[in-house]
Amino acid sequence: MRFTSQTSLDGVTEQSFVLGEIPGVLWTPEGADGARPLILMGHGGGQHKKAPGIVARAHHFVTEGGFAVVAVDAPNHGDRPRSEEFARVAAELRAGVVAGEDVGAQLATMHTLLAGQAVPEWQAVLTAVQELDHVGGGPVGYFGMSMGCALGIPLIAAEPRVRAAVVGLLGVQGLAETAARVTVPVQFLLQWDDERVPRDQGLALFDALTSADKTLHANPGKHGEIPEFETGSSLRFFTRHLG
Amino acid sequence: MRFTSQTSLDGVTEQSFVLGEIPGVLWTPEGADGARPLILMGHGGGQHKKAPGIVARAHHFVTEGGFAVVAVDAPNHGDRPRSEEFARVAAELRAGVVAGEDVGAQLATMHTLLAGQAVPEWQAVLTAVQELDHVGGGPVGYFGMSMGCALGIPLIAAEPRVRAAVVGLLGVQGLAETAARVTVPVQFLLQWDDERVPRDQGLALFDALTSADKTLHANPGKHGEIPEFETGSSLRFFTRHLG
Repeated sequence: MRFTSQTSLDGVTEQSFVLGEIPGVLWTPEGADGARPLILMGHGGGQHKKAPGIVARAHHFVTEGGFAVVAVDAPNHGDRPRSEEFARVAAELRAGVVAGEDVGAQLATMHTLLAGQAVPEWQAVLTAVQELDHVGGGPVGYFGMSMGCALGIPLIAAEPRVRAAVVGLLGVQGLAETAARVTVPVQFLLQWDDERVPRDQGLALFDALTSADKTLHANPGKHGEIPEFETGSSLRFFTRHLG
Repeated sequence: MRFTSQTSLDGVTEQSFVLGEIPGVLWTPEGADGARPLILMGHGGGQHKKAPGIVARAHHFVTEGGFAVVAVDAPNHGDRPRSEEFARVAAELRAGVVAGEDVGAQLATMHTLLAGQAVPEWQAVLTAVQELDHVGGGPVGYFGMSMGCALGIPLIAAEPRVRAAVVGLLGVQGLAETAARVTVPVQFLLQWDDERVPRDQGLALFDALTSADKTLHANPGKHGEIPEFETGSSLRFFTRHLG
């Protein structure tokens, strides 16, 4: 793990790093020392590790909760090269969208392709970040919406170190069996008027989670319109389960 | 309005009162003086103004939020006499339950019967309570689950003084048109495995609310098994909208 830059702003230290091929960012309280809860934060499709929503949420979790937050560029996203296979699947997906088709199956194919690489990457990042003195071996949570949920659910199902998750903005297609292996507490966000995820598909993904402790928060609005108060609610959820 | 008793416990003053035919209880912070937000709290079917869930939630709202909370016995409930018409409708409802029938229509009939009396009663109680120095004319919210939701939605639709509500554990049957007249912020609680309210009926009632600011919280478990953390979430919702 190699750090490439460090800045501090409003009590939050931001460290950019590279782990093998993976570019990432770590946010911690300025002057942090010792172990603390860590949130792995997965970005949405076409976005990257420093998308505005990621940065804002990370700052909130660090300043209000004293958490560490780490984000990485997902495979074929952000600063990373695009593979030929990804380019082909992405082109098919775009063509389907332009043609007004139901692209649920193509989206699931895309997510499965990316998850196969993203899950072991997250596991390596988790191990490396927890070796740092100012992060340490505290409890771990995962936050990810949309594609961040599609890559997060396979991670949570596979990785026992992740003890709680906030996910959502995704339907069940291609994920039912994986979701059934999720048993940790989950807060699931659903947008009632989501133009990309049919409502019944989102409700079915929440239903498919085996977790005894799961809670669904649904709000009016489109895919990108999660209300701001859910950021505080996510932090309280993580504090309840990781604090 | 006539007070019949007053006690204080753990920083909460509880005053029993009678307003005309209506027996009620008012909870305020011990030594309270001046205006504060007021929550009208409606109990469930077969319950009463001092059911354990009502008392526990009232104490939480008073001690953690500085709110005033008032509960009354709904018509034909608690210390109040049962009318012949109520006894007949209740007997039909019980017979349907025993016979294993779908009692949705009978339940809606029962709720409509009670709401016609409960709505003007709540309005009179609200007026009387807000004339007290230690309650005053602050913002008003409504909390009610199950029958408390069935009587609350007509109240909220009719009464502009109620500015936010937490309701739930009820289906849309008989309430769609009334719910469409609700425009204030609503937090709606739904139990994912509710043995009394079909899931799609509960989701349809949330959907029927016109409120631009509405949020659905769904949790696993049966009708009576709302998780304890929702009490804190309800208080934060009221604080956000009435504070």
